[in-house]
Amino acid sequence: MSLNDLTGLTGEWLRGEGPRNDVVISTRVRLARNVRGYPFVPRLSAAQRAELSDLLRGGIHAISPGQDPFAYVDLSEATDLDRQVLVERHLISRQLAETDGSRGVAFSRSETVSLMINEEDHLRMQSIRSGFRLDEVWDEIDRIDDLLEQRFEYAFHPRFGYLTACPTNVGTGIRVSVMLHLPALKLTSEIERVLRAAKDMRLAVRGLFGEGTEATGDFFQISNQCTLGRSEREILDEFKTEIIPRIVDYESEARCALVRDRGVALDDKIWRSYGALCNARAISSEETLTHLSLLRLGSHLGRFDKLDLRATNEIFLMTQPAHLQKAMNARLSGEQRSVARAEFIRKRLGLN
Amino acid sequence: MSLNDLTGLTGEWLRGEGPRNDVVISTRVRLARNVRGYPFVPRLSAAQRAELSDLLRGGIHAISPGQDPFAYVDLSEATDLDRQVLVERHLISRQLAETDGSRGVAFSRSETVSLMINEEDHLRMQSIRSGFRLDEVWDEIDRIDDLLEQRFEYAFHPRFGYLTACPTNVGTGIRVSVMLHLPALKLTSEIERVLRAAKDMRLAVRGLFGEGTEATGDFFQISNQCTLGRSEREILDEFKTEIIPRIVDYESEARCALVRDRGVALDDKIWRSYGALCNARAISSEETLTHLSLLRLGSHLGRFDKLDLRATNEIFLMTQPAHLQKAMNARLSGEQRSVARAEFIRKRLGLN
Repeated sequence: MSLNDLTGLTGEWLRGEGPRNDVVISTRVRLARNVRGYPFVPRLSAAQRAELSDLLRGGIHAISPGQDPFAYVDLSEATDLDRQVLVERHLISRQLAETDGSRGVAFSRSETVSLMINEEDHLRMQSIRSGFRLDEVWDEIDRIDDLLEQRFEYAFHPRFGYLTACPTNVGTGIRVSVMLHLPALKLTSEIERVLRAAKDMRLAVRGLFGEGTEATGDFFQISNQCTLGRSEREILDEFKTEIIPRIVDYESEARCALVRDRGVALDDKIWRSYGALCNARAISSEETLTHLSLLRLGSHLGRFDKLDLRATNEIFLMTQPAHLQKAMNARLSGEQRSVARAEFIRKRLGLN
Repeated sequence: MSLNDLTGLTGEWLRGEGPRNDVVISTRVRLARNVRGYPFVPRLSAAQRAELSDLLRGGIHAISPGQDPFAYVDLSEATDLDRQVLVERHLISRQLAETDGSRGVAFSRSETVSLMINEEDHLRMQSIRSGFRLDEVWDEIDRIDDLLEQRFEYAFHPRFGYLTACPTNVGTGIRVSVMLHLPALKLTSEIERVLRAAKDMRLAVRGLFGEGTEATGDFFQISNQCTLGRSEREILDEFKTEIIPRIVDYESEARCALVRDRGVALDDKIWRSYGALCNARAISSEETLTHLSLLRLGSHLGRFDKLDLRATNEIFLMTQPAHLQKAMNARLSGEQRSVARAEFIRKRLGLN
């Protein structure tokens, strides 16, 4: 497939649907797997790496579902820009985009499933859905894992479980990640307390693009760090019944308090953000995100009605650096991107 | 007259007309005069003060021009809010608004002439016009001065000239003040150089409300400080042919340079200001002025067309604290004013 087909869609993780989508942006489960008989990725020779790529690609192709087939992108042949587009759509990690050597990604056209080949492990499989849908994403990726396990013998140790390149993933190899939108906790400065509690529970808190990105702005990705000594079900259940509902409740309460105690200041912030997006002639992606975050909050609180959530999400995705350059069909400097981004936004808002 | 009649008009000094109105907001000449036989204001008894008020009021009434008659406001009877309205319209000084005792102001309905009674001197007479119109304002106030001099004997010394309460005004008693809009010199940080040069020339640089107000924002009032040892004509000529044209040229050059070198950043600033005015739910008068200054610049540079100068000026005047409260017909706290101001602006911009 051509990546140009992608850039017009919103992608699954930003669809803005699913339970508790007022706070939960997306739910993701990923599994780390390695094929027995091959060294871990850092120790693969170039030839082994290519061989393994082909092997995994073939297996994935064979299990590609008819109703939502996998597309495959050979990342060693893709341009920088195309790889960056995939990162911005959360279909591959930054790490996979930036390393060298034979590697690739298969993903469903709906963008709910993505299977990375030769990332940190031979196979990194994720299912992602907008909203809080742990069971759905787990069921989907578990099914794909089962299908692939019929084709490959995974590196597995009877006592430790699945073996992985990094010891932190040994065991179940599972990582549950929930992307949360917590603007009210941020505005009321209660976020620090929540993040401290998360760290005490040995949860990782990251930014919008996962590992290696800081939790800036109002978006926080909460993930488990331990994968050993507990079953997938135990980890999932804790997220489903305790961790996430609790944070979602905190955020909801903070939103109520904001509306009650600081309604005018809140509206002022929200509408000024809209004003900035409507009128800026140059704007960074960080600033855009800050404003969109407030519009999203305003929409969910019924205090802002100029832009629906879908449009908000589309602007967010399409104004990221690689998507913007794809849309403009040009390589742009940071300054040029700021101008193009402002133009894109005004156009999307029906201005200009 | 009722001050309620005033609050709907723009007033002369903000009319936005006259030569070089792209840079020169208004031109003003004021004369300080005292009536022989009475002590200066600080030493007047209450009874003398009242007597002098009546005397001057009567004389002023007698010379009131038929086509643009004077209104008179007895400031000792006016409310705080009404006095503040007059300050915001530049019809009286802050000092006259805030002191006690018998005092008043006569002003023409066009608001070009205002005659303050018992301010620092017995009589402070000003003529003000929008744009750069030194000859007009001088001719007007000189004529009124002549008419009053036929009715009152001014305190005058053959060697020193007109005698005034403060020695700085002795001599001609003239102060020439030109209000300049210098956003480009401010943006390019060249303003400091200009202000230093002005001070070297013994000019006073003040803010939007004259004496005792700081030159904040983009508006600067340039006035002479010496009134002794030079004729009115010499002082006026220096303003007319040297001081003001030179600063106006500097500002014009700075605007050209801004457009040439930083056009996008300039447009970004201008349009974001418009966005803030259109969308804020609470806004201070200082912030309002900052934005209006940029819109004014944008209009004159042909880079902004959403609001004409008249509307810009009207918003500026009407959103000042006293005008706002008059318009809302209510006493408002600072916080309430911010909300009311934002509402007024959105309404005036055709939004809401």
